[in-house]
Amino acid sequence: MSVKSNIDPRNQKLDAFLNDLASSKPAPGGGSAAAVAGALGAALSSMVANLTLGKEKYKEVEGAFETILEKAEKLRNEFLRAIGEDIEAYNEVMDAYGLPKNTEEEKERRREAIQSALKGATEPPFKMAELADEVLELSKECALSGNSHAVTDAGASAILAEATVRTALLNVDINLSSISDSSFVEEKRRKRKDLSQKARRRAEEVVEIMDGKI
Amino acid sequence: MSVKSNIDPRNQKLDAFLNDLASSKPAPGGGSAAAVAGALGAALSSMVANLTLGKEKYKEVEGAFETILEKAEKLRNEFLRAIGEDIEAYNEVMDAYGLPKNTEEEKERRREAIQSALKGATEPPFKMAELADEVLELSKECALSGNSHAVTDAGASAILAEATVRTALLNVDINLSSISDSSFVEEKRRKRKDLSQKARRRAEEVVEIMDGKI
Repeated sequence: MSVKSNIDPRNQKLDAFLNDLASSKPAPGGGSAAAVAGALGAALSSMVANLTLGKEKYKEVEGAFETILEKAEKLRNEFLRAIGEDIEAYNEVMDAYGLPKNTEEEKERRREAIQSALKGATEPPFKMAELADEVLELSKECALSGNSHAVTDAGASAILAEATVRTALLNVDINLSSISDSSFVEEKRRKRKDLSQKARRRAEEVVEIMDGKI
Repeated sequence: MSVKSNIDPRNQKLDAFLNDLASSKPAPGGGSAAAVAGALGAALSSMVANLTLGKEKYKEVEGAFETILEKAEKLRNEFLRAIGEDIEAYNEVMDAYGLPKNTEEEKERRREAIQSALKGATEPPFKMAELADEVLELSKECALSGNSHAVTDAGASAILAEATVRTALLNVDINLSSISDSSFVEEKRRKRKDLSQKARRRAEEVVEIMDGKI
């Protein structure tokens, strides 16, 4: 019944992905867009690392930037993988809503399935926000001690990572709004708030470092 | 001499585009990432429009959303076209720096060519910021009167459009920092500030409308 998540955007042409996003299809949606923005942010930290490595002037930070590059590449891949996870979780919610509701027992089972699927659907966007938080750490290192000719790319990396956090967390909000377990909702709202405030603070830091170098 | 801008990301697989972005190649860079983020934002406004059109409940806004869809699709295409323009402009700067500088006359000609290319290179990022400003207008309409089930997609559209403005304007900053014509610099800095403040305000508005509906 569910829309099968055979979307692997890595192998999709950008134009085709954007057409799917723009369509009325239930997926990809905002969650997938957040993940692509996160992948753009991670790629820009990779770029700064690649422009720093092998340069005499930055020999002292060679080791640090090898690690940054490795992490940034890993994060980029995880963002792209998260798209599939987000769509799967969304499908589970849709499947649960599609369960029969003829008897009281069926209604109860359906209600439980929906609640459980909604809780599950908060996980991929939280994961995206946490990945983006890691990108923000890398972009700060890039702005602080990477190739100064690429300092605006470090800033761009941070701005896109912050937008990823904010966009991904909208999917948390929409799911929390239908979850009846109030202690779950309260805990996740706190986590959501922490992640979004941290992202804002971190992005501001990177932009400040960058502004001092332009 | 220049890196030829044969990049048409529309026909490139997402993975290949991200690999190019992450590499030490001079282009694509932050400007291209800004444009892709803008295309994501525009696609999300298209999505809300597509989820609004043809629904009995939203019959009253049918005409308005036909226009929104048309504009959003146009903006998405313009963002993707802007990538090529941004890379071309960058190449012109690189070409100018590559001009001979053996005689005083050559030095003067080179200096003028660099200054002119730098001024030209502020145009594509300004254009991207202006396109993103138009996306913000559309996402506000989407949040206000589009399908309420997709209100977070309208919010995501606005957040990504604001990130596009901020990211694109970094390329303005970096070019202005090397331009000696102070009245040009002053005028463009004013324009830059206006665009970035407007984007922030507009995105806040959309997020506020959205929050009221979740």
